[in-house]
Amino acid sequence: MEGLKVSAQSNPKSVAGALAAILREKGHAEIQAVGAGAVNQAIKAIAIARGFVAPNGINLVTIPAFVEISIDGEERTAIKFIIEPR
Amino acid sequence: MEGLKVSAQSNPKSVAGALAAILREKGHAEIQAVGAGAVNQAIKAIAIARGFVAPNGINLVTIPAFVEISIDGEERTAIKFIIEPR
Repeated sequence: MEGLKVSAQSNPKSVAGALAAILREKGHAEIQAVGAGAVNQAIKAIAIARGFVAPNGINLVTIPAFVEISIDGEERTAIKFIIEPR
Repeated sequence: MEGLKVSAQSNPKSVAGALAAILREKGHAEIQAVGAGAVNQAIKAIAIARGFVAPNGINLVTIPAFVEISIDGEERTAIKFIIEPR
């Protein structure tokens, strides 16, 4: 599954739109965020996306998980959000 | 429902323990977080709490939502996490 990568500079409404499109097509989505600012934007995007897909009868929930990723050869802990209909 | 309030200084593992206790007793819980640092700690706590309750057969999911709250007479937008078994 290709995951959306969200940063502290990401626009939550734009991410929410992308998320809703992926969800409508594939039924599930993933967001990856590194750092507090990125996690915050990801969460806002998920809250907004809930409103985008609710009229389609989809009640979105998310599962947060830790993932180890490598950025410029350095190990970092990212948060992966698995986003699915309930 | 009484909600846990999480700050940027909260210890995710401690919050996860409190969360797991509330979940086992009431079946659901809420966390409130204001600001990116607090949201980040809340998400870490939820990811950790998933591991605490998984052996009880509980697959935790969360629903993020915006809430308007008043801090020192000033309107702020907080994130409320509704945490429930799937």
